[in-house]
Amino acid sequence: MPTADSSSSPFDPLVVLELVSDTKEEAVTWLLSRIRDPQQIGGAGLLVEQIGPGVGAEEKDNLNLFLVGASLERLLSGAEDLGLFKEYNDGSMRGFTRSNKHNFKDFKGDGDGFLSMAECQYIVKHELDTLRAKEETHVPGYSHVKLYPGKSINDIRHYYGEGQALYFGFLEYFTFALVPMALFGVPYYLFDWEDYDKYVVFAGFNVVWCTIILELWKRFSASLAYRWGTLSRKKAFEEPRPGFHGVLGFNPVTGREEPLYSNTKRQLCIYLVSLPFVLLCLYLSLYFMMIYFHMEGWVLSMHDQDPTFWTGVLLYIPSIIYAVVIEAINLVYRYAAEFLTEWENHRLESSYQNHLVLKVLVFNFFNCFASLFYIAFVIQDMALLRQSLATLLITSQILNQVMEAFLPYWLQRRRNKKMIRKFQKRRAFGDKELPLADQVRLEADMCTYLGTFDDYLELFLLFGYVSLFSCVYPLAAVLVVLNNITEVYSDAFKMCHVFKRPFADPAANIGVWQLAFETMSVIAVVTNCALIGMSPQVKAYFPDSETQLILWTVTIEHGLLAFKFILTFLIPDVPKHIQIKLAQLEFESLEALKKKGKPLLSQHSGFIAVCAELLCFHLFLGTHTTRLPLWLALLLL
Amino acid sequence: MPTADSSSSPFDPLVVLELVSDTKEEAVTWLLSRIRDPQQIGGAGLLVEQIGPGVGAEEKDNLNLFLVGASLERLLSGAEDLGLFKEYNDGSMRGFTRSNKHNFKDFKGDGDGFLSMAECQYIVKHELDTLRAKEETHVPGYSHVKLYPGKSINDIRHYYGEGQALYFGFLEYFTFALVPMALFGVPYYLFDWEDYDKYVVFAGFNVVWCTIILELWKRFSASLAYRWGTLSRKKAFEEPRPGFHGVLGFNPVTGREEPLYSNTKRQLCIYLVSLPFVLLCLYLSLYFMMIYFHMEGWVLSMHDQDPTFWTGVLLYIPSIIYAVVIEAINLVYRYAAEFLTEWENHRLESSYQNHLVLKVLVFNFFNCFASLFYIAFVIQDMALLRQSLATLLITSQILNQVMEAFLPYWLQRRRNKKMIRKFQKRRAFGDKELPLADQVRLEADMCTYLGTFDDYLELFLLFGYVSLFSCVYPLAAVLVVLNNITEVYSDAFKMCHVFKRPFADPAANIGVWQLAFETMSVIAVVTNCALIGMSPQVKAYFPDSETQLILWTVTIEHGLLAFKFILTFLIPDVPKHIQIKLAQLEFESLEALKKKGKPLLSQHSGFIAVCAELLCFHLFLGTHTTRLPLWLALLLL
Repeated sequence: MPTADSSSSPFDPLVVLELVSDTKEEAVTWLLSRIRDPQQIGGAGLLVEQIGPGVGAEEKDNLNLFLVGASLERLLSGAEDLGLFKEYNDGSMRGFTRSNKHNFKDFKGDGDGFLSMAECQYIVKHELDTLRAKEETHVPGYSHVKLYPGKSINDIRHYYGEGQALYFGFLEYFTFALVPMALFGVPYYLFDWEDYDKYVVFAGFNVVWCTIILELWKRFSASLAYRWGTLSRKKAFEEPRPGFHGVLGFNPVTGREEPLYSNTKRQLCIYLVSLPFVLLCLYLSLYFMMIYFHMEGWVLSMHDQDPTFWTGVLLYIPSIIYAVVIEAINLVYRYAAEFLTEWENHRLESSYQNHLVLKVLVFNFFNCFASLFYIAFVIQDMALLRQSLATLLITSQILNQVMEAFLPYWLQRRRNKKMIRKFQKRRAFGDKELPLADQVRLEADMCTYLGTFDDYLELFLLFGYVSLFSCVYPLAAVLVVLNNITEVYSDAFKMCHVFKRPFADPAANIGVWQLAFETMSVIAVVTNCALIGMSPQVKAYFPDSETQLILWTVTIEHGLLAFKFILTFLIPDVPKHIQIKLAQLEFESLEALKKKGKPLLSQHSGFIAVCAELLCFHLFLGTHTTRLPLWLALLLL
Repeated sequence: MPTADSSSSPFDPLVVLELVSDTKEEAVTWLLSRIRDPQQIGGAGLLVEQIGPGVGAEEKDNLNLFLVGASLERLLSGAEDLGLFKEYNDGSMRGFTRSNKHNFKDFKGDGDGFLSMAECQYIVKHELDTLRAKEETHVPGYSHVKLYPGKSINDIRHYYGEGQALYFGFLEYFTFALVPMALFGVPYYLFDWEDYDKYVVFAGFNVVWCTIILELWKRFSASLAYRWGTLSRKKAFEEPRPGFHGVLGFNPVTGREEPLYSNTKRQLCIYLVSLPFVLLCLYLSLYFMMIYFHMEGWVLSMHDQDPTFWTGVLLYIPSIIYAVVIEAINLVYRYAAEFLTEWENHRLESSYQNHLVLKVLVFNFFNCFASLFYIAFVIQDMALLRQSLATLLITSQILNQVMEAFLPYWLQRRRNKKMIRKFQKRRAFGDKELPLADQVRLEADMCTYLGTFDDYLELFLLFGYVSLFSCVYPLAAVLVVLNNITEVYSDAFKMCHVFKRPFADPAANIGVWQLAFETMSVIAVVTNCALIGMSPQVKAYFPDSETQLILWTVTIEHGLLAFKFILTFLIPDVPKHIQIKLAQLEFESLEALKKKGKPLLSQHSGFIAVCAELLCFHLFLGTHTTRLPLWLALLLL
C-alpha cells in the first residue's frame, strides 16, 4: 500500500470525508462516532482524523475535512465480508477468509500489502455507504502515479480498480482489433478514391471482423476478471446503491435489513414516463435531421448556381453544424436520462447502469446514425454518405477531445494557480511535494469523475461508424485508431490530473456494454449486406430483375446472421481452463454447504442486531433531514 | 416406497441385475462381492440376492438374475453424495445432508418414504455405474401403476423420475397451447377452404403464438424443476456416462479418478467424420425429394389426360410413398447418428445427448420440411402445399402411432402368451398377482425404452408443421391436438406395458430441446413473413412494384425478429420468487465455504483411496475382457 507521509497522519489515509463548513458540531461528532464505533454496535469500526488547516489557511477554508483509514485487521475482515476473491496457494481464486488467510498466495506476515489500495478504498467506501447515509467522498489523488499506454493493465487495476482497468483493457483491445482494418483501408482509400463500387470486399470483411473481435474480447475479459478475482464474486453480495430509497425491510436473500421498493411501481415509472419521453426525444432528433437535409439541399443548390471557393467551403458547413447540434442534444438528453433513471429508483447499481445505458444508447445511436442511414438507404447517394460520415466522425472526435480533457483541464488550471503560488517559497527550499493537508485541499476542488460511461459511449459510437459504414469510407478505421491512441493518453491524463480519483468498482466484465456492442455488430451485418446489395458491382449480376437481387441479398444476410449466432454458441465465453477452476469452486462450496448443519442462523441474528441499530439511525436521519445542514449537504452533494 | 411382496425377498428390490446364463462362477461371485462390499473398500455397499427359479422353470431359464436393493441408511448417504435437493423446513430447496436430515420437510422418523422410488433407483443405478463396469439393468415394472392424462405430473415424477415427468408436462403444455390455435383454425377451415389469400391474419397469429408459448414454458418448467429440486443441482456432479472410455486420470473438478479423453481428438471426429456424413445424408434426402416431385408431376399429367376416380386417388399416392420413405430414411439415419455420437465418445450424458439431438434434428427437419419449403417458395403453389402438408401430417402421425405403441405391443403379446398360460392354473386358485420371481422373468423379455428422445423429436416435427405452415392449412393445429391426446395415452401405455421400466434421470429442463424449439420458432417467423409477403391479399397493396413489397416484407420480418429477441430478454426465464430462493442458496453456500478452512483435502485423499481400488479392478477388467463371457456380456449389452 503506498504510504502517505505519515508525519501528518498516524494511519494510511484511504478516503477523505468532507462536510459543509457550517455543519453543526454535534452532528459532526455523531457522524465521527458512528464511523469510529466498532461494528458490534453498528458502527463502521474505521479510523478518522481531522485535517489541520494547511499552510496559509484562510477564514473561508473548510475545516470539516477528515481523513478516513482502517486498521489492517479491519480491512481484512471487510474483505471477508465483501467476499473478495484472492489467489490461493494452488493458483485458483477463492473467497478470502481470515481463518485460512495464510493459504492465500500473496499473504506475507501480517498481511500488509495483501490488499491492493483500490480494494482497501472499496472496502472503506462500502462500510461508509452501509451506514445508510450518503457521504460525498473522494481520495487523495497521488497524482505522482502516471498512466501511460502499454503500462500493464494490472497496475491500473491496483490503483483505480477493475472497472477502470477493464475500460483501458477494452480500449487497447479495440484499438489493436482495428489495426488490420486500418491497414486494409489505407490502400483502398488511396487507389479507389472516386470508385464507389469497389467496397463489396470491404463490407464482407466488416461482417466477419465485427463478429470475431467481440467473441474474442469476451474470452479475454473473462480471463482478466478471473485473475482479478471478480469473475466469481456472487451478485448476491451487491448492496443497494446509496441513492436507493424505500421503506426499511429485510432483504429476502441475505436476511440483512435494507430499504425495499415495489418493483411494479418501478415498472410503471419506466413504461409510462421514461419510455414516452425517450420516444419524444427520438422524434425531435428526427426533426433536426430533416432541417439538416433542407440546409444541405439549399447549400448544394447555391453551389450549383455559381460554384466559387466559398460555396465549396459552405458545402461542409451544414454537416459541421449538424455534428455540433448532435453533440449538444446528446449532452442535454444525457442529463434528462440520468434524472429519470435516478427517479426510477433502482435497487442495484448494475440495474441503474443498465437502464441509463439503454436510454442514452438508443438515443445516441439514433441521433448519430439516423442521418447516415437516411443518406445510405433513402437518398442512396454514396458520395454524400462518404462526405457526411467523414465530417461527423472528425467533428465529433475533435469535440470529444476538447470536452473531455482540455476544457476541464483549463478550468482546473485556473483554480490551481492560486494554490500553487501559495507554495512557491516552500518550493524554493527544495520541498518537491505538497504536505498532505494542502494536497487534499488542492484536490478537493477537482471535478468528480462520473465513471467510464462516457468513455464507453464514445467507443460505442466509434465502433458504429467503423462497422456500419467504413466500407464506403475506408479511412474511418484509420481515424478511429488515431483517435484511440490519443484517447488513451487523454483519458490517463484526465484520470490523474483533472478529476478527483474515482472509487474502485470490482467489475467482472464491461457489463451491458458487451450486449450493446454485440447488438451493434448485428446491425452492422444487416447494414453491410444492404450496402453490398446496393453496390453497382453486385447489381451488374442481376441486370434484368431487381427482385432477384434483393431476394439473394436477404437470403445471404439471413445466412450470415444464422452463422453469427452459431458462432456465438460454438465459441465458449470463458476459456476452458477457467471454466474448470470455476466448476471446482462451485463443487467445493456446495460440498462445504453439505458439511455444515443449519446454515447461517447465528449470522442471521447477528445481522438483525446490527440492522436494529441502523434502523434507529435511519429514522433519526429521516426525521431531521429537513433541519440539519449536514443532512442537506449529504442529500444535495 | 411401494413394497414388493417381501415374502420372496428380505429387502425392497430396486434394480434387477441380469448376467448371461453361462457366466463363470468366480466372475459372478466377484461381481456380487464388489456390489456387497462397503464403500470404504471401494464396493457399492448394496444388498444383492439371487432370484430362485420361478414356477415351472425350464433348463434354458437364466438363473443369473439378481435383485439389488439398499439399506435406508445407504440410500440416504447416496442421496447426500449425489447432492439431491429436497424441500427444507423453511420451504426452500437444499442439498440433502444426513447431519441435518431432520430439518428436511418430509423426513419422518427414520426417513422411510423420504426418497421417492425413482430417486432410490437413480441412487442405486449411479452406484452400480460408478463401479466402472456397465451392467444391463432394469427394474420390476409395477405395471399396476397406471398413467392417465390429468394425473398430476408429480406422481409420474415419483414413479419414473423428472425426465419423464417433464416430457409429459411439456406434452400437456404443448397440447393446451395449441387449443386456441385449433379453435381459431376450425372456422377458417370451414369457411375459407378454397380461399388461399385469407391467411395473413393466421400467419400473424402464428408468429406471436410460437414466441409466447416457448417463453412461458421456460418459466413453467423452471418452477417444476425447482419444486423437484433438480433446478439447483450443480452440473459438476454429472458423472461420466457409462459408455465413456479413456485413459484413467483425475477429474480436475472433483479430484475423483475417472477415464479422460482428449477433447481435440473428439473435435476432429466431429468435424472430419460426423459433419461430412450428415451433409452427405442431406444431399441424399434432397435427391429423394426431387424424385418425389418427378412422380408428382408425372401423376398430375396422367390425371389431366383422362381424369377418372382412380387417377384422382393416384394423386395422393406419391405424397404417401414419400411420407413413408421419409419415415424410413429417418429411422435408418437415426441409427447411424447414434453410432457416430457413441463413437465420438462424449464424457457427459448431456453432451452426448446434445450432439445426437443436433445430428438427428438437422436431418429430420430437412427431410420433413424441405419438400414443403420447395413447394411454398419455389413452385409457390399453395393448393399443392396444403395438400402435401395434410398428407405428410396425417401419414406420419399414423405411422408414428403404429411404430411407437401397437407394433411393440403386438410383439410383446406374442412373447407373453406362453408365460401367461403357465400360470393359468394358479390363477384358478384366485392368486391375482404373479410372484415376484416370475414377474421379473416376464419383464426381462420386454424391449428397452430408449429415452424420451423420439417422443420429443415427434413433438418437434409437429410443432414445425403447425408453426411453419398451419396458416395455409388451419386444420393442422386440430390434427396435432388430436394426435397429442392419443399420444398421452399411447405413451403412458407403452411406458407401463410395452417397455422395461426406464431409469429415472433427474432433469432440470427439457435441455437442448428448448433450444431446438426456439430455433424452430425463429424459422417460423421468417417463413410466415415470407408467406404473408406472397399472399395475393398483400400483393394487392403493391400493384406496381414487387420490389417495394419485398422490401416491406423484409423490414417487417426484421422488426419481428428484433421484437422476439427483446421479448426473450424482458421475460425472465425463472420466476422472481424462485430467483430469490436460488440467490439465497448461493449466498449461503459461499458463506459456508468461507467458514471452513482448507476445503475438501480429507475427501480428496478419500477419493484417491477409492480410486486406487477401482484402478486395479479396471485393469483387471481390461485384460480379461476378451475371455470371460461376463465381460463380453457387459461390453456388448
